[in-house]
Amino acid sequence: MKDLPGTPGTLSGLFLRFLQCLFASLSIMYIASTANFIRYTVYRYLAVAMSFQLLWSLSLACLDVYSMVTKNCLHDLVRLFATGDWLTALLSLAASSSSAGVTILFYIGGCSGDCTKYQMAIFLAFMSWITIETSALIMFWLLISG
Amino acid sequence: MKDLPGTPGTLSGLFLRFLQCLFASLSIMYIASTANFIRYTVYRYLAVAMSFQLLWSLSLACLDVYSMVTKNCLHDLVRLFATGDWLTALLSLAASSSSAGVTILFYIGGCSGDCTKYQMAIFLAFMSWITIETSALIMFWLLISG
Repeated sequence: MKDLPGTPGTLSGLFLRFLQCLFASLSIMYIASTANFIRYTVYRYLAVAMSFQLLWSLSLACLDVYSMVTKNCLHDLVRLFATGDWLTALLSLAASSSSAGVTILFYIGGCSGDCTKYQMAIFLAFMSWITIETSALIMFWLLISG
Repeated sequence: MKDLPGTPGTLSGLFLRFLQCLFASLSIMYIASTANFIRYTVYRYLAVAMSFQLLWSLSLACLDVYSMVTKNCLHDLVRLFATGDWLTALLSLAASSSSAGVTILFYIGGCSGDCTKYQMAIFLAFMSWITIETSALIMFWLLISG
């Protein structure tokens, strides 16, 4: 259980959760700093997806710390982690892609103002997707092999 | 190896590949039947992603038929199938989501003409994503358990 980097309850697992929280919160900050993201469905969706991912990753980071302090094994919860990570990863990829599609369209039609902020938010959302996808793959591996 | 429904070289596996080909080709048909999909980056991307999925699923359907006829076991190729299925599934989800984001924006801005066709193409792309994601999960399961 403790062999694979990124396993829950290890330092590498906690680092992965920290990266997810960091990217998701930075993405929310960039989105929220634009003047009128609330007008566009996709950017609202991106904000909701990133908030969901932030909450999920933060809860799991707390669980990792708890497990490291109390030396408890989180093996019984791997099924829950795997399902949650997969769903969050799918949600994040869908949100990032749809926002990217709309932002490209804005660029073609001549961009007004907040385009760089939207781009940064989408880049960070993709980064957070890469980290959550890594977690999801590790959890799935642990679920089946362990 | 032959226990799980959807395993390569079985009738259920072939049926899953057939569904993927069907949805992907219908989606391409709908996209191609619109007047000016070539003007929009996301719809071009959707067409490319669906073509890629069609080619991949068709090749694997042929392999399934070959395996059923010659009674050859495809166990050695599961690693390749799992990787290919995952990549195709990610590509399809990203393409469907980005197209859906742009189409929602078109609806808000008042839709001109081909919107229903775009909607149908995206619906079919999502259906094909669901079937390829199912295949990918089965392959991953087989890869680790077998």
